[in-house]
Amino acid sequence: MPDPWVSPVAATLDPAALDAADPLASFRDRFVIPDGDLLYLDGNSLGRPPRAALERLARVASQEWAGELIRGWDHWLDAPLRVGNLLGTELLGARHDEVVMCDSTTVNFYRLASAALDARPDRRFIVTDRANFPTDRYVLEGLARDRDREIAWLDADPIDGPTTDDVAAVLRTHPDDVALVTLSHVNYRSAAIANLAGITALAHDGGALVLWDLSHSAGAIPVELAASGVDLAVGCTYKYLNGGPGAPAWMYVRGDLQAELRNPIQGWFGQAEQFEMGQGFRPRPGIAGWLTGTPGILGLAAAEEGIRLSAEAGIDRILAKGIALTEYAIALHDAHLAPLGFELGSPRDSARRGAHVSIRRADARDLTRRMIATGIVPDFRAPDSIRLGLSPLTTTFEEVHRAIERIAELGRVQAGG
Amino acid sequence: MPDPWVSPVAATLDPAALDAADPLASFRDRFVIPDGDLLYLDGNSLGRPPRAALERLARVASQEWAGELIRGWDHWLDAPLRVGNLLGTELLGARHDEVVMCDSTTVNFYRLASAALDARPDRRFIVTDRANFPTDRYVLEGLARDRDREIAWLDADPIDGPTTDDVAAVLRTHPDDVALVTLSHVNYRSAAIANLAGITALAHDGGALVLWDLSHSAGAIPVELAASGVDLAVGCTYKYLNGGPGAPAWMYVRGDLQAELRNPIQGWFGQAEQFEMGQGFRPRPGIAGWLTGTPGILGLAAAEEGIRLSAEAGIDRILAKGIALTEYAIALHDAHLAPLGFELGSPRDSARRGAHVSIRRADARDLTRRMIATGIVPDFRAPDSIRLGLSPLTTTFEEVHRAIERIAELGRVQAGG
Repeated sequence: MPDPWVSPVAATLDPAALDAADPLASFRDRFVIPDGDLLYLDGNSLGRPPRAALERLARVASQEWAGELIRGWDHWLDAPLRVGNLLGTELLGARHDEVVMCDSTTVNFYRLASAALDARPDRRFIVTDRANFPTDRYVLEGLARDRDREIAWLDADPIDGPTTDDVAAVLRTHPDDVALVTLSHVNYRSAAIANLAGITALAHDGGALVLWDLSHSAGAIPVELAASGVDLAVGCTYKYLNGGPGAPAWMYVRGDLQAELRNPIQGWFGQAEQFEMGQGFRPRPGIAGWLTGTPGILGLAAAEEGIRLSAEAGIDRILAKGIALTEYAIALHDAHLAPLGFELGSPRDSARRGAHVSIRRADARDLTRRMIATGIVPDFRAPDSIRLGLSPLTTTFEEVHRAIERIAELGRVQAGG
Repeated sequence: MPDPWVSPVAATLDPAALDAADPLASFRDRFVIPDGDLLYLDGNSLGRPPRAALERLARVASQEWAGELIRGWDHWLDAPLRVGNLLGTELLGARHDEVVMCDSTTVNFYRLASAALDARPDRRFIVTDRANFPTDRYVLEGLARDRDREIAWLDADPIDGPTTDDVAAVLRTHPDDVALVTLSHVNYRSAAIANLAGITALAHDGGALVLWDLSHSAGAIPVELAASGVDLAVGCTYKYLNGGPGAPAWMYVRGDLQAELRNPIQGWFGQAEQFEMGQGFRPRPGIAGWLTGTPGILGLAAAEEGIRLSAEAGIDRILAKGIALTEYAIALHDAHLAPLGFELGSPRDSARRGAHVSIRRADARDLTRRMIATGIVPDFRAPDSIRLGLSPLTTTFEEVHRAIERIAELGRVQAGG
């Protein structure tokens, strides 16, 4: 029997009733949410802090750092692998020892893209999307310049994102000459979900490696890394995983590629018998060989608590709640915002959409400023998008309802009007 | 008039009197130091937590993260530059806008070494020391392999470290063919101080760039980056700067090189008009163009408090205290440990020594284990060194005295004896 808020959700539904029927409703109490009427629709940029993260931070600082001092490394050393395994096996469909927490998404993306190019030295092209997240595009531009490669840009539909047909076409244009296909699974702007398994298979048929950016997927929708045969992936933990501002990122390297590919940044945390400090780099076996420098323990501890909450909620329930929230937001948009000149900037098919919704209007920049000034916090994305992040563990239907109501009020006044 | 503990310090001096005369003594109260008789001589691996860091962490988590949420980035964005400038101008002798906090020492070392090699494409050799810190050596091995370069290894004296003569000799062996000279300023094992200005000038005479690892210098001894004409430097903040376990690292790029050299990892935090998220990477002007991904704000906040304490104490007073502590430890070693078969593994000239002291004996590994079991915490460094870190802001003369007394007690029992 379907839950009352299963898609399609009508704009006429009572948000209080939707919240009452929400099986994840109690998770909101596990987060620190100050009193006040802030409507926070940006959990896809920075998730709220779990209460457990605050407690853990205090414990790590006052007991472990102050009390154990250097001896804390007896257990801190395992943290990147322990947290990586929790995230990988519970939320990303990876096998044990395929995900490790480390560095930033940017640094990890660089390392994996670099390793992929090294593994395909005779192939010229890197395939990515003009609408891909900026840091991925910038890193690729640097790599293309430094390694004498070329980017074959996809100009995919800005709302629906790159399709398997788009990727197939570019592979046909450069037969046997694509080294790497790299895309975001969920587009940061429109929330369009790319066909992870289909594009991975296509890339493999063409002899290329694939590298997925899962920053907007992890903790929002299921990912089947192992079942889809994905080679490489990266992502952050500060969005739906509620890991904290600038929380450490993670990387995934499929088991059989871990020793085959080469980490360009050979650091001491990737060294076998690290504390012997001997001559000559010899990588630790497994995903640990992809570690680089000393991991930030404070950030990692907070991130672990966030990841634990998502694992406890379960990715299927998170997916269902995300669909319900976005369907509700779209129904309210259609009822109250479309008449004011807004357009939906996200796919209408919930199977093709992550846990955020973009709404577009020419005065979006100014409107976002006015929203924030009145206590509604979304993200503006140039030139004309307001991104509403609906974080399954913390966002309520009531919040969505009140936010759209207030956007409608503000939106009745055009910029400069 | 010299302070009573100015070098040379006699082993017969009363440690309580030395502590009473210590102008930095009150700084110890600014740190969280649990009750108990732990003798912590490893502040050069992980410094103790400043009280201010614990308070700041709680505030960042409960007020900024929880309360400001994404709006915290309005001020978090400046943090890498703000903290970098504090560190650079107060403690490293850098000019404004030459130091930025980011990533790990390993990642920063990779980026700067990589940029230096790119700037000297026709030169084959990288000069470094076999006794350099492992992560630096491992990164260089990877770069040499990937960029078709070769490492010209210095086999410097293991206690006194590489001299200007050593560097001059290798530059003569490979005339006009050295791209990069990179060394640690203070050796991680012996604490030998390399001649930063002299080696920098030699490298420049030979047409090479220099990259210094200042991990064991920053917050322990003065560094004159600008006055010495240093090109590039990196370092961590978790040692003498008391920044916390895995605290963010920093990098220094001399002003005139910031636009000339190329950051191999072009990330969105180094992008001009970052949040326009436009096409094409255009670096931010200045040292900010060397940022990569999203900085970890929790770690950065804690590190800022540690750096503030060192800046407040002043690097000249920190230097004087470090010399007094190490002189005292050496005097005690000579009186009580040398007769038991220990040898000093650090320079005797205080002008050539950082703030730690290595003592050597064949059973050092076993002895370190026994020390830790009885509440004295040093570092073991294979094969035969016990490293005593004497952290100027937190270590007392009393601690040094009691530790060496107890090492002597333990040392009377030989391994297996």
